[in-house]
Amino acid sequence: MPRIHFHQQLAELKDKLLAMAALSQQALESAVEAYIRRDAGICQYVRENETAINAAQREVDEMAYELLAKEQPMAIDLRFILAVIKINGDLERIGDQAMSIAIRTRELIDEQPFDLPVDIAGMGDYAARMIRSSIQALLEGDCHVAESVRDMDDEIDRMNRVAHIDLIHVIQQRPEVAHLALHAILVSRNLERIADHATNIATDVIFWIRGADVRHQLSAVVD
Amino acid sequence: MPRIHFHQQLAELKDKLLAMAALSQQALESAVEAYIRRDAGICQYVRENETAINAAQREVDEMAYELLAKEQPMAIDLRFILAVIKINGDLERIGDQAMSIAIRTRELIDEQPFDLPVDIAGMGDYAARMIRSSIQALLEGDCHVAESVRDMDDEIDRMNRVAHIDLIHVIQQRPEVAHLALHAILVSRNLERIADHATNIATDVIFWIRGADVRHQLSAVVD
Repeated sequence: MPRIHFHQQLAELKDKLLAMAALSQQALESAVEAYIRRDAGICQYVRENETAINAAQREVDEMAYELLAKEQPMAIDLRFILAVIKINGDLERIGDQAMSIAIRTRELIDEQPFDLPVDIAGMGDYAARMIRSSIQALLEGDCHVAESVRDMDDEIDRMNRVAHIDLIHVIQQRPEVAHLALHAILVSRNLERIADHATNIATDVIFWIRGADVRHQLSAVVD
Repeated sequence: MPRIHFHQQLAELKDKLLAMAALSQQALESAVEAYIRRDAGICQYVRENETAINAAQREVDEMAYELLAKEQPMAIDLRFILAVIKINGDLERIGDQAMSIAIRTRELIDEQPFDLPVDIAGMGDYAARMIRSSIQALLEGDCHVAESVRDMDDEIDRMNRVAHIDLIHVIQQRPEVAHLALHAILVSRNLERIADHATNIATDVIFWIRGADVRHQLSAVVD
């Protein structure tokens, strides 16, 4: 009977983490939309959403700590709770990166638009897909899906590098729009960082399922 | 008798974390030195050091998991072990940021030097001091020291903002050195992120000692 209760609590913990993931995902999508549409209202929304993310993060952490303290779980359940704590941290950092995009976008919103050689919408979609798949891997306990997220990371690194080179070129050719190009470089990096967090989540899912430490098998060059 | 053994293991865990902290601290200091002295050898050293950091991180995590699984610690010991897992993650990310500085510095090492309006050495010292103090707070279980680290974060945020503005100005005035100025902007941001991780460590120390969740009392604007 107490074990049944414990597994209900684990399921509840998973639900709380999913709510947290939804908020982070929404923060990313809104921040990219704010950038693309130059919309001050959406920037503001992302900033307010941050409060909800912080509250959700605290709730997940508190429940995880309580389960560790009261239930003293073993083996796979212990690893699951530790994975939840780590994933929760990555989701919160995704929210941070989204807020960083929104804050900087807000500062430049009144500037004359200029068409820059960078596909922020495409990078945003790609990063969002990585988060979604990493959470799906968690839900289904599926290592293959988690591995696929890790494989996706190379592509967004490549997109970020290409954007960086193309935008430096703009800065050198058109100094008068240097601040806009720099903004785009930083947003591109924020999205690449978000993808890194999705990769971390996928790695934690694998850790949970396999119990192996796979974190440094791919010695990813980080930024 | 088993409790004495447990407390010996906790002390050992703390020692392992200190070794990890020393490696991260060294990575930061070396990366800044590589940037200042334009030294390819030090860049390479930082990259190799990363392997040692990853090994140290894994060791700390494994020992922490083992203690959680076998000893089922309660209350303050449980919070300590959870704080160690989080601090370990922040130290690893400090190493990541240092490596990012070293990799980008290596790419630009053969360029003609140009005197830029940014005090990378000063920012590096400041960030290193924050890491040192946060680790000191952990060692001595001292909340006041931890609070002082949190207070220090504002100053490095300010340094980063000023550097950003001054360097954008250079980019606009001297497009031919735009790539060097952009590099300095990114290094300045790496250092500011490192300071954020030191702040996270200080927050985890407070969490361990007080058991309170202080993470979002200061709603720091990130990145």
